[in-house]
Amino acid sequence: MRAGILVTGTEVLTATIRDENGPWLSEQLSGLGVELVEILVVADHPGDLVNGLEHMKSIGIDLIITTGGLGPTADDLTAEVVAAFSGRGMELDPDMEAKIARVLARFAAGSSVDLSVDALNEANRKQAMIPVGAKALDPIGTAPGLIVPGQGEGDPLVLVLPGPPRELRPMWEAAQGEPMLRAVLDRATRLQKYRLRMFGTPESELAMSLREIESDGLSFDGLEITTCLRKGEVEVDVRYRDAAAGAAEELKEALRERHARSLYSLDGRTVDEVVAALLAGRRLGLAESCSAGLLAARITDVPGSSEYFAGGVVSYSNEAKRDLLGVDQALLDEFGAVSAEVAEAMAIGALDRFGADVAVAITGIAGPGGGSDEKPVGLVHFNVRTAEGGVRAAAPVIPGGRRDVRERSALVAMHLLREMLA
Amino acid sequence: MRAGILVTGTEVLTATIRDENGPWLSEQLSGLGVELVEILVVADHPGDLVNGLEHMKSIGIDLIITTGGLGPTADDLTAEVVAAFSGRGMELDPDMEAKIARVLARFAAGSSVDLSVDALNEANRKQAMIPVGAKALDPIGTAPGLIVPGQGEGDPLVLVLPGPPRELRPMWEAAQGEPMLRAVLDRATRLQKYRLRMFGTPESELAMSLREIESDGLSFDGLEITTCLRKGEVEVDVRYRDAAAGAAEELKEALRERHARSLYSLDGRTVDEVVAALLAGRRLGLAESCSAGLLAARITDVPGSSEYFAGGVVSYSNEAKRDLLGVDQALLDEFGAVSAEVAEAMAIGALDRFGADVAVAITGIAGPGGGSDEKPVGLVHFNVRTAEGGVRAAAPVIPGGRRDVRERSALVAMHLLREMLA
Repeated sequence: MRAGILVTGTEVLTATIRDENGPWLSEQLSGLGVELVEILVVADHPGDLVNGLEHMKSIGIDLIITTGGLGPTADDLTAEVVAAFSGRGMELDPDMEAKIARVLARFAAGSSVDLSVDALNEANRKQAMIPVGAKALDPIGTAPGLIVPGQGEGDPLVLVLPGPPRELRPMWEAAQGEPMLRAVLDRATRLQKYRLRMFGTPESELAMSLREIESDGLSFDGLEITTCLRKGEVEVDVRYRDAAAGAAEELKEALRERHARSLYSLDGRTVDEVVAALLAGRRLGLAESCSAGLLAARITDVPGSSEYFAGGVVSYSNEAKRDLLGVDQALLDEFGAVSAEVAEAMAIGALDRFGADVAVAITGIAGPGGGSDEKPVGLVHFNVRTAEGGVRAAAPVIPGGRRDVRERSALVAMHLLREMLA
Repeated sequence: MRAGILVTGTEVLTATIRDENGPWLSEQLSGLGVELVEILVVADHPGDLVNGLEHMKSIGIDLIITTGGLGPTADDLTAEVVAAFSGRGMELDPDMEAKIARVLARFAAGSSVDLSVDALNEANRKQAMIPVGAKALDPIGTAPGLIVPGQGEGDPLVLVLPGPPRELRPMWEAAQGEPMLRAVLDRATRLQKYRLRMFGTPESELAMSLREIESDGLSFDGLEITTCLRKGEVEVDVRYRDAAAGAAEELKEALRERHARSLYSLDGRTVDEVVAALLAGRRLGLAESCSAGLLAARITDVPGSSEYFAGGVVSYSNEAKRDLLGVDQALLDEFGAVSAEVAEAMAIGALDRFGADVAVAITGIAGPGGGSDEKPVGLVHFNVRTAEGGVRAAAPVIPGGRRDVRERSALVAMHLLREMLA
């Protein structure tokens, strides 16, 4: 069972808006064990849409899901194009017309703008035109979805969904109750999956481990292994059918043995989730210079973080380090703001000022200016400490531009915090 | 001149990572007047890649840009597949091999992990294999890019770029100096473009303005107008050929008249850039509760912000509001942490503690918990003030989930700051 997603929308193709539907549907299909072959984004031009549909048919796709192009305006023509592609005419569905009219009447009544219901109805009658033999799906907004079967044996089934994610998502759920779609989805074999997360192992080293594990005798048949470098971490996704469950488990074990230090999540949890769990019952204070609030923002992205997060100082200037964190001016003069000594004093200050029992300090050179031979752009000093006297310090030179250095600083700090609390 | 973008990567197709390259390249092509026909995302399977290339060729595309699949691991095979598609063999480029070896030696030297340079070199020799007759582009990371001409008249030119955006972007710039690519790009007609930014006008109201401006007699022929709601602001992109420059200018003027208050940028500058310019010569202090560092992070995303940004307090707990900002405990007890009174006290505290001449305070309920009938989730109090006594306060209820409320809080604060300083 192979599927393709056809995203229509000039605004998506021109990068005016981001496509949320392709990635979301991809995850849904993956959960159902459907192999997604491609996502194709085209403009609202009938010719491009037809080319996309024909291409997907030509490579043997069984299920095409289209998104967008179901609105009332003239450039919305997915329904007609799909009907023609599937060799079907269009006919008015009076029930659907009545449903849409009711939705529009409600909409007009609730609107502050003066809308003509008749004009709206006319513009939207178009949306009640359904390909002959297709199944219409009740609208969430005003546009019904469609399930359109092909004419010939082996022709793809086309599921036509609206563009707005808040309409598409519930309609996708509803569509799964429909026998025509169900019959196609049931041909897929559901895959199992796990995700490992690592921090500190380069992707090339992981690739070498995988080669060695295979040459040590573990068969990767039936395992689909994807490694991905994402924001400084490596993610390993393993998908497998039930028959390969043993091999999948052995692979996990082998990777755990080889990368005991960097492999920090065996259950898909992110470092943010791991750290949030470790912080329960504690009280955290922060002192950020170059990351300037990014670590605080990350910590508080987790609902309920107010239970353990007391607060932070973004001590961008030396005065702020001195006045709000109690960093000694002599340390700043002697070692400079970006130094192990100042990082330590910032962390001690954060413990003290927030009455915290664990604190993190970050001070570094984000660039593009401000670097020197001795202290290059990307040099960041970290100091993590607990009230009980535990300390972790590090001073890597983080590669990349200003944004990379700042974001990576928050990431490194999360991992130091994890190591400290684990 | 028609182009297609072929994004390769199982991790993109499976929604493990978001594709940043397709949208970015789309904007670049648009700036050069190149018509982008489609963006196709496929997995790292040679068959799917070939199908995509053949499909683009079959619909008459002149320039195919591929992204990703240039790494050292076995599933990275874009170069070989494109070579075969273009009817070319592969050969080792000794200069490129030497260049990559130098990059790797530097990488190994700077790494804290014990890496075998020989093993790395072997894994990466693959990256120095170049299609015969292709132009190799110097690597930004370790992977060279490629410009691969077709064999026949009318065959598409293929530009092969690496997947990581920080490698792809500079390589795209460099590629434009190459005659093979230049010759194809020069066949496009360049469009002029401007972007307006608005804050506070709903997109539907803007749509009505556009209809009225047109019915008032301004012809939109030759103007391509795209409006887009992005992160709480409305962007209006207008693209036009030289012949329509007068109409484009008139449209800008008409929108400026109608939306004088909300239209804050006529030259494409973001609010972050506008505020950065307004802050020059000033000294800013922040006091953030629910936005918890997001405003500080936004302010300091601009290089050189240390000139005017003194620092901030992320006063997540009441103790932090009291101890670090000097908010009176009686105010907290009487009005609660989310109140106009506490926002004011936080801003006054930030002015004082940072010796600032302008301060912003944000305190609100980000949710999902903590809301009440009187103070619902999304209620955020803002207080912006200058040492000279200027004040702007606001207390909107921001819709959406926790992340929306937090991010939108930082955005609203940027606009209040802009209005205060303008």
